[in-house]
Amino acid sequence: MPPAFDIAEYKERLSNTKDRMNRESIEVLLATDPANMNYLSGYDGKSFYVPQGLILKVDEEEPIWFGRGIDANGARLTTWLSEENIRAYSDDYVQSSTKHPMNFVADILKEKGWVDKTTGVEMDQCYFTARCFMELKKDLPNTVFKATFLVNMVRQIKSENEISYIKRAARILERVMQVAMESIDVGIRQCDAAANICHAQTSGTTEYGGDYPAGPPIVQAGERASTSHLTWTDEKFQRDEIVLLELSGCYKRYHCPMCRTIYLGNPPDKLKRVAETVAEGLDKVLDFIKPGVTCEAVEECWRRAVTGSGVVKKARIGYSFGLAYPPTWGEGTASIRPGDKTILKPNMTFHIIPSIWEKDCSYGLSEAIRVTADGCETLANFPRKLFVK
Amino acid sequence: MPPAFDIAEYKERLSNTKDRMNRESIEVLLATDPANMNYLSGYDGKSFYVPQGLILKVDEEEPIWFGRGIDANGARLTTWLSEENIRAYSDDYVQSSTKHPMNFVADILKEKGWVDKTTGVEMDQCYFTARCFMELKKDLPNTVFKATFLVNMVRQIKSENEISYIKRAARILERVMQVAMESIDVGIRQCDAAANICHAQTSGTTEYGGDYPAGPPIVQAGERASTSHLTWTDEKFQRDEIVLLELSGCYKRYHCPMCRTIYLGNPPDKLKRVAETVAEGLDKVLDFIKPGVTCEAVEECWRRAVTGSGVVKKARIGYSFGLAYPPTWGEGTASIRPGDKTILKPNMTFHIIPSIWEKDCSYGLSEAIRVTADGCETLANFPRKLFVK
Repeated sequence: MPPAFDIAEYKERLSNTKDRMNRESIEVLLATDPANMNYLSGYDGKSFYVPQGLILKVDEEEPIWFGRGIDANGARLTTWLSEENIRAYSDDYVQSSTKHPMNFVADILKEKGWVDKTTGVEMDQCYFTARCFMELKKDLPNTVFKATFLVNMVRQIKSENEISYIKRAARILERVMQVAMESIDVGIRQCDAAANICHAQTSGTTEYGGDYPAGPPIVQAGERASTSHLTWTDEKFQRDEIVLLELSGCYKRYHCPMCRTIYLGNPPDKLKRVAETVAEGLDKVLDFIKPGVTCEAVEECWRRAVTGSGVVKKARIGYSFGLAYPPTWGEGTASIRPGDKTILKPNMTFHIIPSIWEKDCSYGLSEAIRVTADGCETLANFPRKLFVK
Repeated sequence: MPPAFDIAEYKERLSNTKDRMNRESIEVLLATDPANMNYLSGYDGKSFYVPQGLILKVDEEEPIWFGRGIDANGARLTTWLSEENIRAYSDDYVQSSTKHPMNFVADILKEKGWVDKTTGVEMDQCYFTARCFMELKKDLPNTVFKATFLVNMVRQIKSENEISYIKRAARILERVMQVAMESIDVGIRQCDAAANICHAQTSGTTEYGGDYPAGPPIVQAGERASTSHLTWTDEKFQRDEIVLLELSGCYKRYHCPMCRTIYLGNPPDKLKRVAETVAEGLDKVLDFIKPGVTCEAVEECWRRAVTGSGVVKKARIGYSFGLAYPPTWGEGTASIRPGDKTILKPNMTFHIIPSIWEKDCSYGLSEAIRVTADGCETLANFPRKLFVK
């Protein structure tokens, strides 16, 4: 199984990354987000619970992969990197109080003579722990470290190949959502419906097999729908119960997420009103999105659409998504909310999620979209309505 | 859905944690590992991609939950904490370059007057990022921070209730492994077999529904079996191909993991020899384990058993496991390897994993075990052999 894309695509990504390193005056970059590692090298392993990453130098052709010894063959199989750039630490570095993988990384930087370089570190990504940073600082007292998010920023605008992968994830998602709607019913155990969902996510379509999404299915029934991140239980779905879904398809680590809602019975009037308001607000947002507008302007469009309706959305109404590993398919960059001045550009992808999670009335609805040359397109095609059973 | 255990159990855990805080001279503890949050409060949400945690003070009865606004109802539903101890930050703290959830945490500590306390932080757990620590240090210049792992240490010894949950996960795992063995065959797409595995993990048994495991199924076929953490592809299984499996059952976040191997064809003699050696080594290890012996002595027992066989295991042969969230079901504490002087005690649980991942010959075999009063018991019951189809 070679890397998911042609080497030319990885080289292009690397070149864009180095441009940005130059702009940010970063000479050496430690890319430790597993999605960033995959983006630049192809590396695809479930090994991110131990420190691993890529070392990029702005004037070196290839990044250096570092990781645990038992994962090095994984790097050989899934990346385009040459043997000399696969550097594995021995197992006594793993979860030890006396040694740390970042000591190994510091040794590589010393060996290369790169210790006096301004070095970019992904300060706020899961997997770059506080200790990772402390060990680096201790071992490299003369290195200037600079917080950066630059690979995530480069990843915001997708290539045509990436869009085609996201569209495959969208085909998987459509099937997943269909299976969910068929499986959820009064008297069915929540875990059994979730099992069918997981099956559909993993099996994918007859053309494209599914990958494991960065988050488990969100399947929230009854009062559990009053919040945003619970999963299923082994209780049975009840009559007159609302079920909120947030599900994703995943193809070669590219996601396509979606929220929908199903009501098992006759939906209360209030829910019908909220559903209508949210759907109209989402329609207006999708009509509004085009290159050149800012994230905050998109949010303002939403807020104007729902003002006076009683619907109040307390969280951001969207975020950039794409290539990802657990714990989230979000890219951690642009958010659709007040104050975010990111200017939309073609081939940015956003999960527009005006879902409402409240104690007295919840409703889940979202679309994954791509910014096009003159507007946006929804990536998956699934009825945008309150499902009733 | 109330917390998974009686409140008395949480109070007992809290009491053990505070004892350990006293021993480590830690007055305030930030428990940010989602498994530690769950262990002490019951909190169960897939919200750990944003900073969240518990604040424990050694002389306060209840911990304080902090997290994102849209997850607060999740805390209300899944924890035993009182309303005053559920503290949610507004959404502008999320993934922002100007604000950070740890500023909110620092504000709570200031409000409580706990800024001059020795404060324990989980420095090397995913989700406590480098920036989390930097923001705390910036906001609380007079606080002495101390790296700790103390909740994980408390978690090492399981209560009877926890053991019963792990045994439910074991029942799920037995079904999962059976489904895997039935599903994997020449001409079947790897993703379709993985889909059946995911279905079985999630559906669970007729008595106990499954939860999402902390890691996806490891299903490695052919040359991909030469490493430890790859997942499936959408290629079909081939004749004369080896397939390594590392799968877990999960019940209310408690895991039971297991490795097995299946060969599609006539296994080569070398594989048969390696399989025999590893199985014999594992048998000896399981006979050796009992309270009072150290982790390093267990590893030495393994090494002595395989010396001269040609089988060389480069990684640790086991680790403590239990309650967990992505990215790993390991507890990050004791490892079965040279230098680990942890003394085994009853109701510690280990994943003993002498699996071999090499280019020329791989073999996956493991058992999840509980240390008993005078030895150990394997938690799941599944034939300990090389499967051939």
